[in-house]
Formats: sequence, C-alpha cells, structure tokens
Amino acid sequence: MTHHREEDSIEFEVSFSNKEEAEIRTRLIALQAKIREANIPVIILLCGVNGSGKNAALGILRDWLDQRQLDLHAYERRDVRKDPIEFRRYWCDTPMNGKTGIFVSSWYSDPMVSHAYGKIDDDGLYEKLDECNAFEKTLTDSNAIFCKFWFYKNKNEQEAFLNALDDSPYEKWRVMPDDWKNCCMAEKFEATTKKIIRYTDKDYAPWFVIDNGNFTERMRTALDILCSRVETQIEELKKQKKAETKKKAPKPKKPVFVKELDMTAQLSKEEYVEQLPYLRARLNALLTEVKKRDKKVILAFEGPDASGKGGVISRLASSIFVRDCNIFPIAAPTQEEINHNYLWRFWTRLTDQKLLTVFDRTWYGRVLVERIEHFATDTEWKRAYDEINHFEKQLTDGRNIVVKFLLYITKEEQLVRFKAREETDYKKWKIGNEDWRNRDKWEQYDEAFDDMLEKTDTKYAPWFVVADNNKKYGRIQAMRLLCEHLEKVLDYNPCEDIPAPEKEKELPKTKKNKKKKKKSA
Amino acid sequence: MTHHREEDSIEFEVSFSNKEEAEIRTRLIALQAKIREANIPVIILLCGVNGSGKNAALGILRDWLDQRQLDLHAYERRDVRKDPIEFRRYWCDTPMNGKTGIFVSSWYSDPMVSHAYGKIDDDGLYEKLDECNAFEKTLTDSNAIFCKFWFYKNKNEQEAFLNALDDSPYEKWRVMPDDWKNCCMAEKFEATTKKIIRYTDKDYAPWFVIDNGNFTERMRTALDILCSRVETQIEELKKQKKAETKKKAPKPKKPVFVKELDMTAQLSKEEYVEQLPYLRARLNALLTEVKKRDKKVILAFEGPDASGKGGVISRLASSIFVRDCNIFPIAAPTQEEINHNYLWRFWTRLTDQKLLTVFDRTWYGRVLVERIEHFATDTEWKRAYDEINHFEKQLTDGRNIVVKFLLYITKEEQLVRFKAREETDYKKWKIGNEDWRNRDKWEQYDEAFDDMLEKTDTKYAPWFVVADNNKKYGRIQAMRLLCEHLEKVLDYNPCEDIPAPEKEKELPKTKKNKKKKKKSA
Repeated sequence: MTHHREEDSIEFEVSFSNKEEAEIRTRLIALQAKIREANIPVIILLCGVNGSGKNAALGILRDWLDQRQLDLHAYERRDVRKDPIEFRRYWCDTPMNGKTGIFVSSWYSDPMVSHAYGKIDDDGLYEKLDECNAFEKTLTDSNAIFCKFWFYKNKNEQEAFLNALDDSPYEKWRVMPDDWKNCCMAEKFEATTKKIIRYTDKDYAPWFVIDNGNFTERMRTALDILCSRVETQIEELKKQKKAETKKKAPKPKKPVFVKELDMTAQLSKEEYVEQLPYLRARLNALLTEVKKRDKKVILAFEGPDASGKGGVISRLASSIFVRDCNIFPIAAPTQEEINHNYLWRFWTRLTDQKLLTVFDRTWYGRVLVERIEHFATDTEWKRAYDEINHFEKQLTDGRNIVVKFLLYITKEEQLVRFKAREETDYKKWKIGNEDWRNRDKWEQYDEAFDDMLEKTDTKYAPWFVVADNNKKYGRIQAMRLLCEHLEKVLDYNPCEDIPAPEKEKELPKTKKNKKKKKKSA
Repeated sequence: MTHHREEDSIEFEVSFSNKEEAEIRTRLIALQAKIREANIPVIILLCGVNGSGKNAALGILRDWLDQRQLDLHAYERRDVRKDPIEFRRYWCDTPMNGKTGIFVSSWYSDPMVSHAYGKIDDDGLYEKLDECNAFEKTLTDSNAIFCKFWFYKNKNEQEAFLNALDDSPYEKWRVMPDDWKNCCMAEKFEATTKKIIRYTDKDYAPWFVIDNGNFTERMRTALDILCSRVETQIEELKKQKKAETKKKAPKPKKPVFVKELDMTAQLSKEEYVEQLPYLRARLNALLTEVKKRDKKVILAFEGPDASGKGGVISRLASSIFVRDCNIFPIAAPTQEEINHNYLWRFWTRLTDQKLLTVFDRTWYGRVLVERIEHFATDTEWKRAYDEINHFEKQLTDGRNIVVKFLLYITKEEQLVRFKAREETDYKKWKIGNEDWRNRDKWEQYDEAFDDMLEKTDTKYAPWFVVADNNKKYGRIQAMRLLCEHLEKVLDYNPCEDIPAPEKEKELPKTKKNKKKKKKSA
C-alpha cells in the first residue's frame, strides 16, 4: 500500500513492510482457498466511523483477495427503507458457499442511526436487533461464518481526522455529508453502539472491536482476527460434520389431518361452471382491494404429485391480469441455489414483487422432500419449522398476505391419475420414475404433512387443506377459501356488486368443508 | 377448456372438442420437447385489443404447456418508461435456450400507444421500430425463433365485446381502464398497427395477423401457425448447422495499434505518489458532477493476462464511496449464461446500476477469446462488432458515459510477471495453464485487438489504449485519460478547486501519450 503521511501526522493510508505484506497476503489467499474447500459462506461486517480503519480494511481486502470469490455490499439507506421487507435485500445478498461477502453498511446501520438520532427508544432498538440476531442465527445454522468488526475512534480522534481531511485539497472529498454531524453526536453513537454490541455479540456471530493504534496496527489486528476466526470455525465445522450420525427414522404415526378431511366431496359440472366465473369476479374484486391498500398476496401450494396444484393455480391466476401475477413452479434447485441457504431461492424470487405471487411447491420442500430423502439432516429440517415461521412473519410484516394450500388426494386417486398420465400422449411428460418412487413413500409424506400443519399453521400465514379427489370441487373450494380468507383479513366484502349464483345456497357451507387443523403460533 | 356462452352470443372462452384438444396438446408438448432438444429460445408475442383472442391464447398456452419451460412477461408501462435504457428490461427477460418466452405486452407497446395517441409522428415511430428490428435481428442471429401474433378486431366487434363484458357482473372486471378509450380510437390504432406490421414484418421475425372467426377458430389458427413456424425454423437451423464449415484462420497481420504505443513510458515512485491523490480527487469531483446530472459511468477493461487491469480498477474505484461502485470480474460464463445470447450476462449486470460500473473483462470476449478459441463461429464474431456498437449506443443513449480501456503490455513483460506470480506464494492463484496457453496465441490476440479497436472505437464509446509495462505509469495514465475524457464529455473542469501537484508540468503531456486509433463510427 502507498505510504502517505501529512505533516500533522494523521495517517490516511496503511503501510506494511514488504515482508509483512507478503505474510498477510499469503495467509489471506490461503484462507480463501480453505473457504472454497469447506464450501461455506463467510460474512464480514465492517462498521465504524470515517477514519476508524473501516475503509482501510475494505481497501486491503478488495486489493488482496481474489475478487472473483468476493462480493461487496454497501447500501444507500433510502433504498433499504423503501423496501417494506427490510431483510429481503440482505437475504438476496448472502454470499454463495465458498465465497465471502463484505458488508460495509449492513442490517445494523438502520437500528444504529435511528436509535442514536432518538427516533426509536431502547425497546425499539432491541426489537430490530432481535431480527438481526435471528438472521445471523439462521445463516450460521446453515454453516455461514460471521466476523463482525467494529472500528472505534473517540470524538477527539474523529475530529482530528476529519480536520486533516478537510485541510487537504486531495482528501477533502472523503468527508461525507453526515461525518461532522455524527462526530458531534459521537457520545450518543457510542452509547448506542455499546447496546448493539452487548445485545448482538453471540458465540455464533461475535463482534470484534478494533479500537487501538494507527491504521497499520488496526489492520494488523483485524486481519489476524479475521484469519484466526475463519480458520478456527472451519476446523470446528469439520469436527461437527464427522460427529453427525444418521438416526433411523421411527415408524410413521398415523396422520391427523387426513382423518378430518372429507375425501369424497365433489361438484357437478353445472355447479362448477356456475361457480367459477362468480368466484373469479369475487377474487378479482378482493385483489383489487389488496392493491388499493398497497399490499400484496403470496400463495403457497403443496401436495402429493398429481394432486392438481397446476389446475387450481391456473384458475386463480386467470382472475387477474397477467402483469399482476407471477407463478413460480419450484423444481429441484440449481447449482447456484444449492450453494445458498434453502430460503435464498425464495427470497430472490420475491424481489420486484407483483400483486400476486404463486409458488407451485415451496420452501416447505425443506420439511417434505428434503426431510424424506435425507437431503437435509434431522437437525436441519427440525429447525426449519421455526425458520419458516419467521420467514413468513417477515413477509406478512412487510405488507404481504400469505396463504398456504395443501391440496390432498388419496393414494388410490393418485394411481388413477398416474395411469391416465401414462396413457395420454400430452400428459406423459408429467410422469416419471421419481413420481412412482415418491408414491412408495406415501405414509412418510403423510406424516411430514401432519408435522408441517401442526408446526406452521400460524395466524399470520394459515394453512388450508383441500380435498382434491374431485378436481372441480378442489378448484372451487380453494378459490372460495381464499376469497373468504381475504374478506376476513381485509374486513371487506365485495359480494354486493357480485351476486352469488343461484346454486350457491345449495352448496355445502365451507365452514363444514374447511377441514383445517386449528392452531395458531 | 370450460365452455361458457352468454345469451348475447359473445363467446368468452374457447371450446375445443376433446379430440381436437388432445391433438393440439400433443402437438404443443411435442413442440416443447423439440425446442428443448434444439436448445434454442422461442419468443412469442401476443398483441391485440381486449377480446381479440390475445388473452385466450395466453390462457391456453399457460394451461397446456409445461410451465417450467415457459416464461411469461407483461409490463406495467410506467415501469418500462422509468428505465432510461428501454431495452434493458427486454434483454434481461429473453428466454434461455430450450425455453419459451411469451410476451403479452412488449417492445411494440410503447411505440404503438405513443403513435396512436399522437405523441410521436411517423419518423418517431420508425425510429423506435428500428430498435425493435435490431433487437429481434440480434436475437434471431443467435438462433432465437420469433412468432409474433397480432389479434385483430374491428371497432364494432370491440364495442360489442366490451358491452357484453360490462353487462355481466362476473366478467365486468375484465374491462380495463383504457379499453373503451382505445375502442373509441380504434381507427387510429388500426392505422398505427398497419405501419408497425409493415415496418417490422421480417423474414427472421414475421407477423401473423389473426383476424377471422370466433375465439375457438382464432385459437385453432394461431396454435397451428405457432407449431408450424417453430417446427420449420428448427429444421432450418439444423440444416444451417450442418452446412457450416470452419475456415482455416489466415496468418495474422501485423497489428497497427502496438506500433503507435510507447511501451517504454514510465513514472517514478515520487511522481506516482504525488499524482495519485490528485487524480483521485479530480476523478471524485467529476463523478460527483456525473451524479448531479443524473448520469452514470460504465468502464470496460480489456488486455492480455497480467496486464494490470485489477490494479488500475482498484485505484479508480478508491476514488468514490463503495456504495457508488460495482466491479464485475468477468470469468468463464455459467451454464445459465451460456444458454443466453452473449450480451445477456452484461445486460443483467446493468440492472440496479450504481454511479460507476466497472467490467474487468467485457462483452469484447466475443471478439477476443471466443474468436480465437473458436467458441464463436466466424459469422458470429464478425457480426459481433455491430452488435456491440449497438449495445454501447443503447447504453449511452440511456444516460451512460461509456469508456473503454485496453491495457497493453509486451510479451516480454508478461513473461516477467508470470514468473513473479509463480514465485510469489500469494500470487500463485493468479496463474494457471490457461494463461500459458493464451500466451502462445499472443499474435492472434494482437490481431484481434487491432480489429476491435478499428471497428468499435466510436465517438460515443471510445477506446483508450494504455501502455502498462510500467504499472505506476499505467495506473496514472488510465486515471488521467478518464479524467480528461469526462471533462470533455461533461464540459466541466473541477481543477480550480484541486490544484495540480508541482511535478504535473514536467510530466509528458497526455496528448502525446494517448496512443489511440482515431476512428469514429
């Protein structure tokens, strides 16, 4: 690095001897190789005021690491604030396995500034920090290594540094608009910082405070901490991996939800043809109201193969204009997706959200196929219920209405549909060996469905179970449940303008059909 | 499909016999298999007024095709207008090889509406349509198959249809805000449509007008055209592929640009240390001015391995805050990127643009490594110069300043650097067998650089060639050329506030150093 020293002896840049530089760079490059080999993501946070060494650290890491294995993130605070789901951006920016993400501003920026400026009180701060802790915990659980740095300078030091910058025509531009303001308020920032560090300094994501020495000394300390921490954690993960043993799965229990479901429910063609346009108009009116209120709807569909998810989704989607709707069929993850936390591929699909987003299979794959096929370890899928609840809570807190459907058919009905697929030219592509193999695991899926309903049927993101042995009944029933739920959530009834068809009264009431395990988290 | 007929005999849905439905669905599924096998993208445009069959066609394709091989796109016009680079969105949304993209609104929507509403005249229309043609031509050249449908209904038919919708409480919601307005102005729209079709009906991307019969008949015609067109084109592509033969590369000519370059230029450490902060401050001031004017800067870096691109980029980037800068190191394309037009991976990196975007290696890979390693055919890389010029024109038209640097070193200097890499622990990762192999093709690269400079050094996106045998000289020189260019483009001089250092006057003037082939396209 260039050595550059002003007369007033404030140091602007870092200066290592050639020998020391070579040692550090060798260690950093070796570290990146280890990260790649361990195939885990590393997340480095660089926090602190201007002149504290934060930018110097960034410069060094940018220059000395292999950039192809590195992502840099710094956010405009107004961009972050625009997003109703605050953590969406951070989730999408989590580094891939084997890569390192450096965050210059982060999830701590907003709590920090808001609290120091007095916009939120301690309770407000801790509430926001709970989110930070949860985010870091989820990522650590999927093997991310955190290394959080707080570079500290006291008020006098800050002042001297900013003055030195201001005095040099070549360095003046480094003084940012808020720098002097924050320097003035240094005591408040210090108090907030202490609270933040105390509350979010966790074993799984510790803080390292760098508060001593000139730039060069600070860098020496920080880089040593970084390397030691990541090296140790990688060793730790290796040990854990060895210690993990697979337990034999216990015999499946008889599921509860199936017993409560009337699998013989059906609808005639006449009823269907009459109900469909009515429900479509009703759903359209409700979604228009959702739009007016600046909210969005996210629908999740799960169910056995051939349970008719596509058919239901197509009817739902035809209730609004194409440009208002995104449908995501979720298949096996791509290589990029596998190399991220399992929620990442859903977070990334939720940027640029349309009025209605439909997932044909969902994040529940974690506790269904990944559980049953042992793609996830026991610890992983058991932990996932909480993670998923938290994920859905973040969505609903961010102006989303989340509704989940389990479309269920009997094993016999599936056989009929599989055979029909095999015998129909244009349906053959829908059926493969995997579907037959999944069928053999029917009872395991039943149990997994049961656990899923038990653990994730929350007030804010409820499950609706729909018997779909009769496709016409299933489609109408799903649409009706959705309409009723939206009416309840919005406290809005569009039915005045849309008269129910004649036969409506004769239809079995949904209250009775709604076979849904009641349990709110 | 559901059969649903209102008393006034306006047909809302399509009704095929079971037999015909089976035939069509079988053909559509077979078509998707062919598309996958041919590994080419198919782009379907559905244009037309409400009630013309456009939405019915969309519904059928959505229901009957395998959704996993299908992307649906419909744009909010205000979103499209917000983007200063109109085609960025369309480029990012082009389907992958093997997949089909259906566009309900498209690049024709804006020209259409603007012209019909009288906001642009014929010249304005044709100018916009030139862009549409260029876009479709580029994609067709990389094997995309276009199938553009215009569903037509005359004013009386439109009126009847909208009235029928309005009369039904269940269908009323289908009338969109502009539908009646557009119906009133049907004659103007018709006139505009005729012009659009005449001007953009190309062999490589023909229009098909569907103007006859009820919904069912229209669907029958449209689906038949779709299948025939795609089937024929796939056959055509197969034939072309067979006919392609590889010509032997002619002996490389002696390149021009190297002769004009002073490869011995250098700078002392003292000069470097004095110049760097000065140029950094100057560049910062210029970029601040760029931001004020709501523009952005895109920098492209090319050059032989070890020519020092990373070092220059790091110095440039340290002139602004991290959150204002994105650096993209471009390595071999991912599987997803390979399965798109070669420009796609750059378009997608240009969404959410920051003030400064730097590409460490670029789209010029098409005419450098892809040319030399035969990853691109002769036709492909020869065509690429025009495509690239057009790409850069679109960027500059969209408020970007594009500047391109070729950092050049001599073959001898490369050898010195390669050896240093091999001997330094923390630089070993930078050198591999591929680098040595590329070195053997030095003369071919020289020739390719020469052609590139000759064909793509445009007024709106100029090339600067920098001799980088001396790294200090190269870094300072690149920064200075960039500053001078920005000053010229912005017609703004920040030097008053930032005095040049003492030695500035003694330095060789850049006019003499700037060894740049002058040629404007």
